[in-house]
Order: sequence, then structure tokens, then C-alpha cells
Amino acid sequence: MPPAIITLTTDFGTSDSYVAQLKGTILAVNPDARLVDVTHAIPAQDLPRGAIVLEEIVQVFPAGTIHVAVVDPGVGSDRAVIGAEAAGQRFLAPDNGLLSLVFRWFPPTRVHRLAENRFWRNPVSATFHGRDILAPVAAHWSLGTDLAEFGPPIDVSTLVQLPSHEPQQIGNELVGRIESIDRFGNLITNIRDSQLPKGEKSTLSISVGGHCIIGLSRAYSDQARGALLALISSSGRLEIAINSGSAGRTLNIAPGAEVRIGLP
Amino acid sequence: MPPAIITLTTDFGTSDSYVAQLKGTILAVNPDARLVDVTHAIPAQDLPRGAIVLEEIVQVFPAGTIHVAVVDPGVGSDRAVIGAEAAGQRFLAPDNGLLSLVFRWFPPTRVHRLAENRFWRNPVSATFHGRDILAPVAAHWSLGTDLAEFGPPIDVSTLVQLPSHEPQQIGNELVGRIESIDRFGNLITNIRDSQLPKGEKSTLSISVGGHCIIGLSRAYSDQARGALLALISSSGRLEIAINSGSAGRTLNIAPGAEVRIGLP
Amino acid sequence: MPPAIITLTTDFGTSDSYVAQLKGTILAVNPDARLVDVTHAIPAQDLPRGAIVLEEIVQVFPAGTIHVAVVDPGVGSDRAVIGAEAAGQRFLAPDNGLLSLVFRWFPPTRVHRLAENRFWRNPVSATFHGRDILAPVAAHWSLGTDLAEFGPPIDVSTLVQLPSHEPQQIGNELVGRIESIDRFGNLITNIRDSQLPKGEKSTLSISVGGHCIIGLSRAYSDQARGALLALISSSGRLEIAINSGSAGRTLNIAPGAEVRIGLP
Repeated sequence: MPPAIITLTTDFGTSDSYVAQLKGTILAVNPDARLVDVTHAIPAQDLPRGAIVLEEIVQVFPAGTIHVAVVDPGVGSDRAVIGAEAAGQRFLAPDNGLLSLVFRWFPPTRVHRLAENRFWRNPVSATFHGRDILAPVAAHWSLGTDLAEFGPPIDVSTLVQLPSHEPQQIGNELVGRIESIDRFGNLITNIRDSQLPKGEKSTLSISVGGHCIIGLSRAYSDQARGALLALISSSGRLEIAINSGSAGRTLNIAPGAEVRIGLP
Repeated sequence: MPPAIITLTTDFGTSDSYVAQLKGTILAVNPDARLVDVTHAIPAQDLPRGAIVLEEIVQVFPAGTIHVAVVDPGVGSDRAVIGAEAAGQRFLAPDNGLLSLVFRWFPPTRVHRLAENRFWRNPVSATFHGRDILAPVAAHWSLGTDLAEFGPPIDVSTLVQLPSHEPQQIGNELVGRIESIDRFGNLITNIRDSQLPKGEKSTLSISVGGHCIIGLSRAYSDQARGALLALISSSGRLEIAINSGSAGRTLNIAPGAEVRIGLP
Repeated sequence: MPPAIITLTTDFGTSDSYVAQLKGTILAVNPDARLVDVTHAIPAQDLPRGAIVLEEIVQVFPAGTIHVAVVDPGVGSDRAVIGAEAAGQRFLAPDNGLLSLVFRWFPPTRVHRLAENRFWRNPVSATFHGRDILAPVAAHWSLGTDLAEFGPPIDVSTLVQLPSHEPQQIGNELVGRIESIDRFGNLITNIRDSQLPKGEKSTLSISVGGHCIIGLSRAYSDQARGALLALISSSGRLEIAINSGSAGRTLNIAPGAEVRIGLP
């Protein structure tokens, strides 16, 4: 049996010892767990950003991977903590919308509320459920405990949802927005490949930040250095970029900015 | 036998190759070692900060874990390099006070000076003992070599101590200080739960940065969003925080600032 | 057989999910791969910096380690992607000069172009060959596939080279330059130990940023706190430093600045 893979996505940063406390707690239960950091640079308490990152990684990890996600402004309140199976993978997170995007595109097949405190670290703090509940449950889950043992099933329809930011058709335009800006200054939109108008991609008209781009490129290097371009990102979203440059800096644009696609 | 866990706590940052050089050196001796980054963001040569982080992680890792700590302004001088056992765990560090807090709360049962250079990388540089001494010794230790083989025992009382910053009773107040500020802007003090006055926690009076807080909360979410509060941190220290906000930014406070607790 | 070690050196940063996508893709093919981050803080598309980091780590990892390097401004163009064996280790990178320094000091014994797309992730994006080509090939290579199966051999002399920045003898001086500045503010030059004039090191004259240093120190602590000094770095290069201080900040110097050594 291959070693259990457990990924970690948090807003903890890497300067404090919080991430190490998660890992130590997991390894104390399952010393063979294979730990993978997704990112700990989710801005503090930024649930929408966490949700996007989680959606991006779902399809690259092997089946059965356990994803632990901790962006948890409500820690210590009565918000639930859940375990779920979706897309052949496993998820542990607070019920605060962090898994919204994963569940929108990969409907969960099972969701349980974590309630059985015999699987938790004792005593449970009121400020660090990532370490005291999610980490040990992840470790036990990786060792073969069934999800149902951690607590009762929850009706998926009752889970907390983040506000939807799906692109909207308005008149003869598809109106979306910049969802995030990556380290290279590439602008990642909320418009999926499948949502673009069918047909000829070379005449597609894209407006963003007062600029107009005609047609989709295949790669950054298809355009001249410094040229503004649009393409389908490696995660299947419409992306605005500058070959060998930073679209974010050049266009002076921030997440939330509108992107409009002309419809035929 | 579960794989040996070796944690790394340094002031190396993650932009240079120094951390990877530690890891490569460990893996060259024990390719099965399980490496865990605690943090590499200790400010350059900041021994007190390193000491705090090491204390925070002691109780979460499984027994036998080897913690390698490298904050080493005296590298290449005649300061000793030591191996120690404390709290059921194992430590490797320069003898410069980095392990002071761990040893204050978990007195070491064995401390040895690393002297046997047959366990070291050859040649040993004068600027990177983390890579050339601590890393290979960690790897050999993880493979079963006994601590005594690395060098002679040292009398614990001769180890370098950092200046103590324990809270002091002054008049009818317990006077402590802000020790660190985490990524969320939470103010972590040097006052442990066990050092707070016994009895009623709801009337405890806490002064910090010109503000007064009455009573301990259980969780951030016990107070309104934006409210200043005090609670016991997940590591058992008095912590000053703002629910869904940054106490550090709002109070404009820095490590070293005074915290005063009224005594009954 | 010890687990395969695969290191990652990229300009992806750690805020986006790109690094995790590399790792998930590797683990989907070889769940037993041992992943080691070298750094993901190479400045965006900075090939010379990537080349230096790769040279620094070559000699510390165990034989057979696979180093995946992704700084790839030409992704999606017709630049080749290569696998190579050098110094008893294995390398995967775009053919854009990223491996220049490794190959200058450790001539590769085999270099192949990655061409066999049955080893790749499908479909292959035009913007993320690190995830779609290099990561799965690394995983298959770690499982025992021979390099020759990934594509045809390439003549080493045809590989892309970065411009050389070797020190030059000009008159009676050896003229080099600051190549990088580490987290401690130490100035790392392009002058190797072996390139320094033979003989007496205590009278060596080193000029940098308007300052003159006489003689090589052995360790930082050989000089007074705050003193400017020169020594041989832990990677065998001439390094300018300040004991317990930052030479970069104090001398207000940047990479590219000239360093001159008087020749006898």
C-alpha cells in the first residue's frame, strides 16, 4: 500500500510554528504520512482565495489523497468541522465555504461532521482546531478509519457556501472578473474554458482594464515579448498575461476587476 | 520501525540553497529520514525568537523526533555544538542559548558535546556547521547511533543561557511582556497559563499598550468582530487578540511591550 | 532500495498552487518519491540565479538524486526540454541555460531531449511543462525507466549556454563580480577558491565597493563584530561579509558589482 498523502492548505504563513504543529500532530498518529504543503500564504482568513487554491489542486493529486484546509475565522464558535469525499479524494475543513468551489465542480459523495472526540488531540484548544481536530482526524483517516466513524453524515445542501462569482451573460457579453493574480503577474479569471463561446477562438474579443485583446493565444511565447495576450491557463481558466512581463503590474489591475467577452 | 523524523528550525530563509544543503546532507547519510520544516524565517541571528519556536513545538512531535536548530552567529568560533535529550525528544544545536526555553521547561536528561568528527561532513567548513556537523550527526543519530558516540557529556549547568524574560510580580501586579506577534497580529506574551492568578478568570484585569481588557475569553469568536480580547493561546500562553482583526496593527505594538495583570 | 529523492527548484513562489501541482503530479506516478524543495524563490524568469542555486546543491545530495528545475520563460515555444546525467546525479530542465553552471563544472555524461509523450501528463498544456512534462518524467525516471526511453540523445555542444561570467585577469588584477547576496547580506562572488592566486592568503588584497580587505579570514567570528572581511564560502567561492552584520546593506552593493583581487 502506498503511503498516505496528506496535503496542507492554510493561512498560517511560515514564520510561526503553527504549520509544524499541524505536521507534528499528524506524525504523532501516523509517522508514515507523506505531508505536502500546498500553500500557507492564503491571506489571513481569506476564504475565497483558499477555495480557489483547493479547486486548482483537486485533479493533480492521486486518488485517496487527504487535503487538510485550515482558514478558520470562526474557530471555537459552533461552526462545524467536516470530512468529505469528492472527485476520488478526501477533504477536511471547517464548514465555512472553504470547500465551496471544489464541491461546485466535484459534488461530494459523502460529507460527515467531525464529532467523535476520541480521535482528537486532548485537550482541544478553542483557537487551533487545525492542530487539535483536523490534523489527528487526517492521520486516523490515512490509517484506514472510515469517514463515518468520525461523526454523523450531513446533508450537502446545508453546507455553508461562499457567494458565487460565476460569469454572467449581460446583453451580448459574458462578464466575468479577475479572481487572482499569480506570482508572474498573470491575471486568472473566473471564466472557465467550457464557458467561453463555442467556435472560432482567433476572433474572440476580450476587454479588461481598458485594454482589448483579440483572439486566444496558445502559449505566452506565441506573442512578442511585452505583448498583452489571453490564453487558457494550465487550470482551464481564461488568463490574461504579458509575454515575459507582468500583466498585473502593467495594467495596474487588482482581483475583482471586470473582464468582458464579446459573444457572437 | 517508523521512519526517523528530523525537524529543521533555522534563520536561513528559503531563497538561498542553504536549507536544501542541510537536507541533501542528511539524506546522503539516511535517505529514509522524514524531514519537516519548522520555520526558516527566524530573523537572522535572533536566538530568543528561535528559542520560543523550539519551545512551542516540543510537545506536538512524536517521541524520538530529532530537532535540528541552526541560528548560529558564532559559527567557526570555539562555541560548542551539542546534542541533547529532553521531553522524550532529541535536539541538536549550537550551545548559544537556542535551547534555553526548551531546557527551562523540560530539563534535559542527557547533553553531549559533538566532538567526534568521523560523523561529520568532510571537509568541515568554518561557516556552515549546520550542514557539516549538525546535519550528518542528525542523520547518524536517526539511524541508531547513541548520543554518547558523538562526543563527551557536558554538565547542563555550564550551558549558555539566554537572558530570562520571566514575568515578575511587582506590587500587586504580574508584569510580563509581548514576546512575539504571529501572522494574524495576535500578541503572544511570556505569561504562561500556570502563572496567572488562580481563581475567577472573568474578572482578570489585563493592561497592554494603554488598553485594558477585563476577563479571559475562551475563543476569538466569543467576542464581537473587532473587539480586543485576551485568551490562553494554543501553546498555553496569555495571548492578546482582536476577533477577525490584527491586535498588533490596531494597538501599534511591538515585541517587548509590557503587559500587566492585576493580582487579587 | 532507498526511496527516490526528487528536488524542486523553481521561480513559482509559494503563494500559488503551482508547486503543489508539480508535487501532486509526481506523486500520482510515484507515491513513494521523496520530494525536497530547494527553493521556489528564484526571481521570475531569472535563469542566472537558478543556475547558481543548482550548482550549489550538486555536491550535497546523494548519488542518483533527480533535480527538477523549472525557470521557463520559453514554455510552449520550440525550446527543448532535457534530461541529463552529471556528477552522478540526474537533472530535468528546459534547454535554456538553467543547467549551464552545473554542466560547466560537472560535464554531463548523457543528455537526452524529452520527446516521448507517453510519459507525459495528458493533455499537455502550453503554459506549464513543469507539471505536464518534467514532473511525470521525473517520477518515471525515479521508478527505473532509463533516460534513453524519454527521447533521443542530444549533442552537449548544442545546448543553450548562459553568458559566461568567469573572473578575468586584467593587468595585475583578477576581476570578478558579486553574483548573489544571501539572506544574511553576505556577498557571494563568482571567484572560486581554486581561481585565487596561490600562496599566502593573509596578504591577499580584495577591493569591493570602494573598500579594501587585506587577507582571507577563516570564519566570520575571526574578526570583530561589525568588521568587513573576506573568506571562502561554504560552497567554495570568495565571499565578502560583515561579522554579525549585513555586508550588502552596509556597503549598499548589488549583484553585478565588481570585485578585484591584487595578483602577486
